[in-house]
Amino acid sequence: MAPIITLTTDFGETDGYVAAIKGVILGICPTARLVDVTHSVAPGDIRSGAYILRTITPYFPPGTVHMAVVDPGVGSARKAIAIRTEAQILVGPDNGLFSFVLENSPPLNVHSIENQRYIRSNISATFHGRDIFAPAAAHLASGIQIDAMGPPCPFSHPDWSSVTMEQGCIRGEIIHTDRFGNIITNIEGRHLKVLFQDDAIAIEVGGQTVPGLSATYSEAPPGTLLALIGSSGHLEIAINGGHAASFLGVHHGHMISVLRAKI
Amino acid sequence: MAPIITLTTDFGETDGYVAAIKGVILGICPTARLVDVTHSVAPGDIRSGAYILRTITPYFPPGTVHMAVVDPGVGSARKAIAIRTEAQILVGPDNGLFSFVLENSPPLNVHSIENQRYIRSNISATFHGRDIFAPAAAHLASGIQIDAMGPPCPFSHPDWSSVTMEQGCIRGEIIHTDRFGNIITNIEGRHLKVLFQDDAIAIEVGGQTVPGLSATYSEAPPGTLLALIGSSGHLEIAINGGHAASFLGVHHGHMISVLRAKI
Amino acid sequence: MAPIITLTTDFGETDGYVAAIKGVILGICPTARLVDVTHSVAPGDIRSGAYILRTITPYFPPGTVHMAVVDPGVGSARKAIAIRTEAQILVGPDNGLFSFVLENSPPLNVHSIENQRYIRSNISATFHGRDIFAPAAAHLASGIQIDAMGPPCPFSHPDWSSVTMEQGCIRGEIIHTDRFGNIITNIEGRHLKVLFQDDAIAIEVGGQTVPGLSATYSEAPPGTLLALIGSSGHLEIAINGGHAASFLGVHHGHMISVLRAKI
Repeated sequence: MAPIITLTTDFGETDGYVAAIKGVILGICPTARLVDVTHSVAPGDIRSGAYILRTITPYFPPGTVHMAVVDPGVGSARKAIAIRTEAQILVGPDNGLFSFVLENSPPLNVHSIENQRYIRSNISATFHGRDIFAPAAAHLASGIQIDAMGPPCPFSHPDWSSVTMEQGCIRGEIIHTDRFGNIITNIEGRHLKVLFQDDAIAIEVGGQTVPGLSATYSEAPPGTLLALIGSSGHLEIAINGGHAASFLGVHHGHMISVLRAKI
Repeated sequence: MAPIITLTTDFGETDGYVAAIKGVILGICPTARLVDVTHSVAPGDIRSGAYILRTITPYFPPGTVHMAVVDPGVGSARKAIAIRTEAQILVGPDNGLFSFVLENSPPLNVHSIENQRYIRSNISATFHGRDIFAPAAAHLASGIQIDAMGPPCPFSHPDWSSVTMEQGCIRGEIIHTDRFGNIITNIEGRHLKVLFQDDAIAIEVGGQTVPGLSATYSEAPPGTLLALIGSSGHLEIAINGGHAASFLGVHHGHMISVLRAKI
Repeated sequence: MAPIITLTTDFGETDGYVAAIKGVILGICPTARLVDVTHSVAPGDIRSGAYILRTITPYFPPGTVHMAVVDPGVGSARKAIAIRTEAQILVGPDNGLFSFVLENSPPLNVHSIENQRYIRSNISATFHGRDIFAPAAAHLASGIQIDAMGPPCPFSHPDWSSVTMEQGCIRGEIIHTDRFGNIITNIEGRHLKVLFQDDAIAIEVGGQTVPGLSATYSEAPPGTLLALIGSSGHLEIAINGGHAASFLGVHHGHMISVLRAKI
């Protein structure tokens, strides 16, 4: 079976960066199936990249290699790592980019990528995607074992604020805005279940209060704010036919609260 | 021969939506060749998506599966359908998205996609692309017959205004603006042939009159408006080296008229 | 081994142009591996496209076919050409698009693409990408020899200003701006070596002076201008965490100078 390698970066689509990575991969693993996840992660926005990775990894076949590079610290001391979970392999910088994936699929092995056999001989200080991550991912997809990459190592936990649940209130943050202007938060459906069971809720964000959860984007009247548990299981704020992020003027990192609805 | 599946959506390139679809497809049909048509159809603009599909289907080999999702009614009552034409298979929502393709390639079979064997077991209310259309397209590409998807069904004809030809005047609409700012209309070269044969014509759009047809974009002086029959056979308005849509301030749905030139 | 065909164009990602090209290629060469380099070259900006091609060709395996279409003169008299270098094949318009690639990999054969067997029978005046370059690239990837495409021919050298080195000063131009706002110039690391060896230098651009070279983007304090030799070997101006091109208000074609630093 041809191995699958997915690519998630903030390199954009206007340059040759991603194609150089693909050339390196195909030179090492000619049968690899390359799947672009996105190259439009907001530059350096590790948490948004981590969220996107979480939304796609459950849908790929076992054995898929997910290479991701959102790496504002390229050239600094952060390690390059390869992680094996039960079903998949993750390759990228050790900066938290895989932390949401690993919440659902715990790491079985983590190795530092250091073996000169599996990276390029000239390492550009600014393009580890091409010179370290691409060849490592290609060798892993070709069947090289993860422990050949380098010594075992710990991996970094990012210090992102987590969801808090207390006194009848869930507080979280906006972590991603999608193409449609839908606001994705770090609050998940399971958080709501724990605190509110089936009670009516209200969501406060950007100075507005959104009453209750909808099932679909088209359930609310056109132009009105709605909340729903999106296809990734996260709480989203949307506007039927509109752009919620622009309307509310909110950004990644903005607070959002969920409360029991007043009756 | 590895089956080809093309993907046309309004999901954008900044999220994981398209990659989740590809993961589902490759899990079911590992040999599928995936070709992105575009994921940048204007959100919910079914007619623009329909036009793009019409421009690409003639160029793909027989047996290609074209999956398309521009689906403002996701989660509503519209059906999910699979259509077989003489040479290709179409998979998507029943909302008119395939209507331009079917004008040239009449449907031989249309089936509602309902068979639980060929869709995912948990259907998100907001992401039928991943949960219904992707698995159905993958099974069809793998050789499952279209009548296994579900019962035969009719398909919806959209109520888009069509081209009118009367009293020496052809009236149509703008249906797409391309990357270069060229305005694409629903008027085709064949309409002009019928009404004007080889007579000189003039095109009225956005308060401007464009005299006659050019053969190429560079035939008119730089910066001036020109009209031509584009590579899809549709009447286009362009500016040599400029952005006609911005210059004219016109949008999808704006009227355009073609008249016999005054001498 | 499945042949690789890369695609570099200014066709954008919002239309069906690129997919039509891929359909034509896969109809002729079903096993081709298609790699998108970018379709977002600034419309008609041949030099920016030429730079991008230079950054990716060294990373693809021998035998790769690179098809590129940035072609403001489509439909005019410029020839369609196929070029063989020691390791790769280039297909596109004869307008200088391959000139940077050929500086490093001299052409062994150049042929005009004219043979009716290897192009489509109906040639649109506005879409040679689909009707000439795509079928030619697919046939070449399938193993057809380059001399079957048409007669040998010379190729055009663009009249772009080149780097000048005199009186202790290197003068060049901005040729590309990348996704991060980094400004790429036509001055390369080797130019600096020749004139300054290891002496300290200063770079003047957009009314600002940047002192010396950094090794990485994160070496300078956040928000300050820095210069470095980027992953392509070219001199770049960047801002750690910022967008240098917007900050400086410079565009392709703007001058840049490198001088010995005053002590």
